[in-house]
Amino acid sequence: MTDTNRPTGAINLAHKLSLFSDLWTQKKIADLNDYEVKLAKLKGEFVWHSHEETDEMFLVVGGRLTIRLRETDDVVLGPGDLFVVPRGVEHCPVAEEETAILLIEPAGVLNTGDAGGPLTKPAETLD
Amino acid sequence: MTDTNRPTGAINLAHKLSLFSDLWTQKKIADLNDYEVKLAKLKGEFVWHSHEETDEMFLVVGGRLTIRLRETDDVVLGPGDLFVVPRGVEHCPVAEEETAILLIEPAGVLNTGDAGGPLTKPAETLD
Repeated sequence: MTDTNRPTGAINLAHKLSLFSDLWTQKKIADLNDYEVKLAKLKGEFVWHSHEETDEMFLVVGGRLTIRLRETDDVVLGPGDLFVVPRGVEHCPVAEEETAILLIEPAGVLNTGDAGGPLTKPAETLD
Repeated sequence: MTDTNRPTGAINLAHKLSLFSDLWTQKKIADLNDYEVKLAKLKGEFVWHSHEETDEMFLVVGGRLTIRLRETDDVVLGPGDLFVVPRGVEHCPVAEEETAILLIEPAGVLNTGDAGGPLTKPAETLD
């Protein structure tokens, strides 16, 4: 197929997760209009940050993710649990064990949002 | 919490799927900016259709979904398999067994796209 926008088959999340081991680095696995579908592996505590311009969807594939929030109770997610952090809401992801997540948000959103700092990384494409 | 846009906790996909049994009816479980995160149960063959204005993301939660395509090979999805049907690509979802999917696309996209007909239903909100 010469048109890269044409269907090329199923994307298996477990297989894609087997292709990388680095933590806190988002790996793009698909485009959805101007959104990106990404995987990441997390362990430890990230930085408090927010995204002023966009909601951010988390779906836990394996492990356990706590999303700490300033104004409301923490949200604890296991496999098959989904949560949308609303735009502008400060949050801090924490994973005591290694945790795999599916993330969906508009292309170009940085992982550290408004906080910046050494953990800031653009998403990488996972082929 | 008085602001309905504030966090209210994890959304468990299996629990949400236990709340309905009707087939081919999309149930909204979350908003992601102007996109909707929806669940549906499928069994049998849907109608050939396309969405001229948007890509459509399918993630199989349980069962097995075949997405028939006119121009390229069918895409067969099991649990943990994801596929994005590009905008304008005619497709026909088929599930031999009852299959549960997570769907993400912009709000207001009709299930039958350009085809219309008796299976056309707007998404319902699942509380």
